[in-house]
Amino acid sequence: MLEGQKRVRFDPQLAGRKVEHGRLPGDTVVRIERTGAFRRRGQNVLIATDEAHDPRAGLDRVVTKVKRALIGAPVATHEAHHERLSKVKALAVLSSDALSSSAYATEQIVIVLVTAGALALSYTAPIAVAITALLLIVGVSYRQTIKAYPRGGGSYIVTKDNLGAFPALCAGAALMTDYVLTVAVSISAGVENFVSAVPAFDPFAIEIAVAVVALMTVVNLRGVRESGTIFAAPTYLFIGTAGLMILVGLWRIVAGEPPAHDVTGDPSAYPAEAPLTFFLVLQAFASGCAALTGVEAISDGVPAFKPPEWVNARVTLTWMVGILALLFTGISFLAIHYRVLPRPDETIISQLNRAVYGSDTPLYYLFQIAIMLILALAANTAFSDFPRLCFFLARDRFLPTQFSFQGDRLAFSTGIMVLGVLAGVLLVWFEARTEALIPLYAVGVFVSFTLSQASMVVRWWRRREPGWRTGMPINALGALTTGIVAVVIASTKFVHGAWIVIVLIPFIIANMWGINRHYRRVATQMELPTDAPPVVPLPDAPIIVPVPGLNRAVARTMSIVGGMSRNVVAVHVTDSRERAKEIRAQWEREVPGVALVTLESPYREIVDPLLAYLDAVQEQVGREVPIVVVLSEFVPRHLYEFPLHNQTALGLKARLFFRPNTIVMDVPYHLDK
Amino acid sequence: MLEGQKRVRFDPQLAGRKVEHGRLPGDTVVRIERTGAFRRRGQNVLIATDEAHDPRAGLDRVVTKVKRALIGAPVATHEAHHERLSKVKALAVLSSDALSSSAYATEQIVIVLVTAGALALSYTAPIAVAITALLLIVGVSYRQTIKAYPRGGGSYIVTKDNLGAFPALCAGAALMTDYVLTVAVSISAGVENFVSAVPAFDPFAIEIAVAVVALMTVVNLRGVRESGTIFAAPTYLFIGTAGLMILVGLWRIVAGEPPAHDVTGDPSAYPAEAPLTFFLVLQAFASGCAALTGVEAISDGVPAFKPPEWVNARVTLTWMVGILALLFTGISFLAIHYRVLPRPDETIISQLNRAVYGSDTPLYYLFQIAIMLILALAANTAFSDFPRLCFFLARDRFLPTQFSFQGDRLAFSTGIMVLGVLAGVLLVWFEARTEALIPLYAVGVFVSFTLSQASMVVRWWRRREPGWRTGMPINALGALTTGIVAVVIASTKFVHGAWIVIVLIPFIIANMWGINRHYRRVATQMELPTDAPPVVPLPDAPIIVPVPGLNRAVARTMSIVGGMSRNVVAVHVTDSRERAKEIRAQWEREVPGVALVTLESPYREIVDPLLAYLDAVQEQVGREVPIVVVLSEFVPRHLYEFPLHNQTALGLKARLFFRPNTIVMDVPYHLDK
Repeated sequence: MLEGQKRVRFDPQLAGRKVEHGRLPGDTVVRIERTGAFRRRGQNVLIATDEAHDPRAGLDRVVTKVKRALIGAPVATHEAHHERLSKVKALAVLSSDALSSSAYATEQIVIVLVTAGALALSYTAPIAVAITALLLIVGVSYRQTIKAYPRGGGSYIVTKDNLGAFPALCAGAALMTDYVLTVAVSISAGVENFVSAVPAFDPFAIEIAVAVVALMTVVNLRGVRESGTIFAAPTYLFIGTAGLMILVGLWRIVAGEPPAHDVTGDPSAYPAEAPLTFFLVLQAFASGCAALTGVEAISDGVPAFKPPEWVNARVTLTWMVGILALLFTGISFLAIHYRVLPRPDETIISQLNRAVYGSDTPLYYLFQIAIMLILALAANTAFSDFPRLCFFLARDRFLPTQFSFQGDRLAFSTGIMVLGVLAGVLLVWFEARTEALIPLYAVGVFVSFTLSQASMVVRWWRRREPGWRTGMPINALGALTTGIVAVVIASTKFVHGAWIVIVLIPFIIANMWGINRHYRRVATQMELPTDAPPVVPLPDAPIIVPVPGLNRAVARTMSIVGGMSRNVVAVHVTDSRERAKEIRAQWEREVPGVALVTLESPYREIVDPLLAYLDAVQEQVGREVPIVVVLSEFVPRHLYEFPLHNQTALGLKARLFFRPNTIVMDVPYHLDK
Repeated sequence: MLEGQKRVRFDPQLAGRKVEHGRLPGDTVVRIERTGAFRRRGQNVLIATDEAHDPRAGLDRVVTKVKRALIGAPVATHEAHHERLSKVKALAVLSSDALSSSAYATEQIVIVLVTAGALALSYTAPIAVAITALLLIVGVSYRQTIKAYPRGGGSYIVTKDNLGAFPALCAGAALMTDYVLTVAVSISAGVENFVSAVPAFDPFAIEIAVAVVALMTVVNLRGVRESGTIFAAPTYLFIGTAGLMILVGLWRIVAGEPPAHDVTGDPSAYPAEAPLTFFLVLQAFASGCAALTGVEAISDGVPAFKPPEWVNARVTLTWMVGILALLFTGISFLAIHYRVLPRPDETIISQLNRAVYGSDTPLYYLFQIAIMLILALAANTAFSDFPRLCFFLARDRFLPTQFSFQGDRLAFSTGIMVLGVLAGVLLVWFEARTEALIPLYAVGVFVSFTLSQASMVVRWWRRREPGWRTGMPINALGALTTGIVAVVIASTKFVHGAWIVIVLIPFIIANMWGINRHYRRVATQMELPTDAPPVVPLPDAPIIVPVPGLNRAVARTMSIVGGMSRNVVAVHVTDSRERAKEIRAQWEREVPGVALVTLESPYREIVDPLLAYLDAVQEQVGREVPIVVVLSEFVPRHLYEFPLHNQTALGLKARLFFRPNTIVMDVPYHLDK
């Protein structure tokens, strides 16, 4: 309780001065000499120390502890980790998404072709050649981008730079859908390879996939350092084991040995369900284009390379494209040669693995593990790419501000959580089946490829820098081919799921555009003109205190607000005249300084008469004068006691929130027991 | 925006005086002459008129309109409706619960007996006789209560009066469970009779039952006037049609006519699954005791009778018990004679109905409709009994306060909604099957019968009023038999579901006891001693304003709080020194009166450093001095824009709520577009 008139003083800088404080004027009490939570740096500037982040008592302590256990202790901004990557490490960090596609791309071609019967599989070879050619074109094209944007040339940034905000949003929205799909497709493919090796887990494929997404979300909220050393292992393990399997497979074929495990599919089990049309071949090609996803990663990440950045990045890109081309063609060749057919219970790559090494051999398991690891790593890449893209979009105010906040651990927590939830929903919805997800995939990637390459064409044309006569045609070819492929993918897979992405991208763009417009409007409204007159305090603001009667909480509230204005009125809404009279008598004795107004409410309703009273006061003081409404709220000691209190205060608060020019002051009364 | 120093004045009584208000001292503006929302009644007392309840703009208007469409316009306290009932009307209003039991009680006996094979059905007759005897004992016993409690003798009140708070809570908790079951059992039995007549709806029984509960909840929130005239129709229709069916049935038997529709069950379809033990017979008796539920209603409702109340109530009780006894024995006799057996797709009463009138005859449908109506009416009775019981309990502070609030329409809205939800949950959980619900039923009723009769015994003994030598033995016999029956029901049906109620009742009692203890503690803590010194205002409370920078909203906030205290400090938490410097420069120009403290936060975290700062200030001013924290909140024009703002303010508010002695002042800034 506050008793007597007390002089309250404090030093805003928390300096170690003596602080006058006491019951009677003149009492002097030294409160603190210094506080450990802050260090002082110049006039009115304090730096929060670790102590300022120590968990407080009660619920707060519990929440903080759970959070720290889950995602770890906070990391200071200046501790941000920026490892510069050598070419060898960069290849590991930046190519997992691209290289991992080779684990499922061939299968996706075969799955489409086989609907026209097993004979249609003869088209696998030309399709694989076409995709490899496309890969080389895109690779050469991106070599230009790397040189032009040594500070990082993601599609959104490159497009914004050359084509403007709207195309950039298209690229951004396309990439967003694609990152979500990268997670979903990589994890579903990884889980499929896991259950191919360990069929007992087949019934739990969806659960495993969702658990992996959840784990990745938490791990990324902790903040994964893009440590080249750690990431190198799975990538090189995959390159090594995939290369080895292809070589051993080729050697077996050359040596004329039969497969170690018979995997040749039974063609009669695959009757032609559809005619072998040109459209179907295009569709198979479109599915196989999933092999190209992730190729853009190196051009996004140029600044992470050791200097000279662009040179190293270019070399790495060339290596990556070369390795991917070899793996993809090698795996496709083996698949064609062994005449493997898609099976619901085993992936094609696992079948090839068995054919080369035999079932359940150590090398079989090693390669399966490598596949799973690289697919997990690929999914994990999206967990840094998606939040970073969202950060760029939020920085340009196309997404809500919270996407630009770095959490305790420097991770963009909002983006990570949104990605985790969306990928989880996709996996559940499509039952973690890669085949079902593939039609949605790659549309976004090729839209962003096209916009990015087209931007480069515009850039060459505008700048005419040395080399533009070679560079521009290369990028033009890139833009043209990727543009055509984007149309092919969108049209051939439209009914199978691409329509979802095609509907979604404009929807995302419209939303981002709306968000941006809203933020711009708000900024205009909120801006304080540089020549605005200085702020003048408003004396004696009208303060209305609804009271249920007179008790300690109300007395304390009246003491606090009584000193803030000379326009304080207590309002008591009642449906009992007798009780109102008793309260008034007590009030006049105990709170002589403040008028009590009784509002009789015939409908036993408290909120409506109070709002009507506020309206009447507002009419008197003028629309532009704010009214302060003071609410006393009980804070019981236990959470489960909350429903026993504050029903009226909460209802009133909800209504007051929408009333213009109304300030709500919550005076909590913490119950002792 | 607030500009210049303005003199704010208003008259708390809203009287039609001229109000000074203007930009410069001396400007005089007449704001209003009077407001239509209030009438003045004496010094500082205003009466809210209907205008005060008119819906306001925006969301409020929508909410109000939906609410009014659903539950109607508010009803003033003085408009409360108290119809005095004649005996004829009283029988209709108060006996639906009791009489409707005859529609399912016989079936419940048969269902239990038949588990020992069709031959066991020979025990139906003695069980029915025993239940009828029990009914007469309870009836005579309640005649005493009616005389003793002419102002209404519900079990809770009678028990509290004679045995004290704890037994009263037992009675209250027992009755609460029973009212919920009355709704569930009556509606499930009603729906079963509906689908017996119209089998096409059988698959939707649960949905229909839940829809009926929802409808009843809404109708009761509107406030059902206990209009004897309206209620008389279904009750007398049921009495008439049930009586007619029994008479026609008896006449057919006497005349030796065969049943109009063959309903005799095939005994071989009911093999004995259990031996015919005494326990099983007791169990069948316990199930049949559902016939007695609702008998207490008349003694609860004595004050609703025309004077002399207790005399009329007694006569009505006698009639009710007599009619119930006749209907129950009549229906049981027909069931025994026609040897009907329980069927999953048709109720026994519907089978009898067919046997007497023939399938699909008008009289068959008329009686089925009458059954459904009386069962609906019985469920509806619980919708006034349960909330009224909760009101009594809340008035005595054994339940949260909101159970004692009368809504706009004078109904106890909270109790009605709680009952609706609980009954709905029960119906879904037990798949709207009467047979499954019956083991839970009647335990509560007999516990409350016993406590109520035992209370009468104590009362007779204490008062020794004239007639106690006859009255006391009657009530003692009532208490003894109902007590024994309560034990029989609880033990024989324990494993079939009664355990749920037996666990639930102590749980409810413990909760009510805890709620009461909490409220008593709070009341003690909150009470202001009569000799407390008058409240003295606290001058210059510490006011801390976290600011993200300086914009119109912040400037407005500073103007408002600047006039409230001389201890105002703005705090800016930042992770960018450069921006902090810019803000400081602008601040010192625009808000010269208020110090700006910059807190540098290395972890990019806003809330923790702020809380630490508050702690440091608190140490300076002393623990007992409240600190006001001012939050600026954006209120966008559209709800969907909310996620774009206020993330930090909301997080901070949640944390501050638990901080002792912290007052949160919300200064909203309503965006114009």
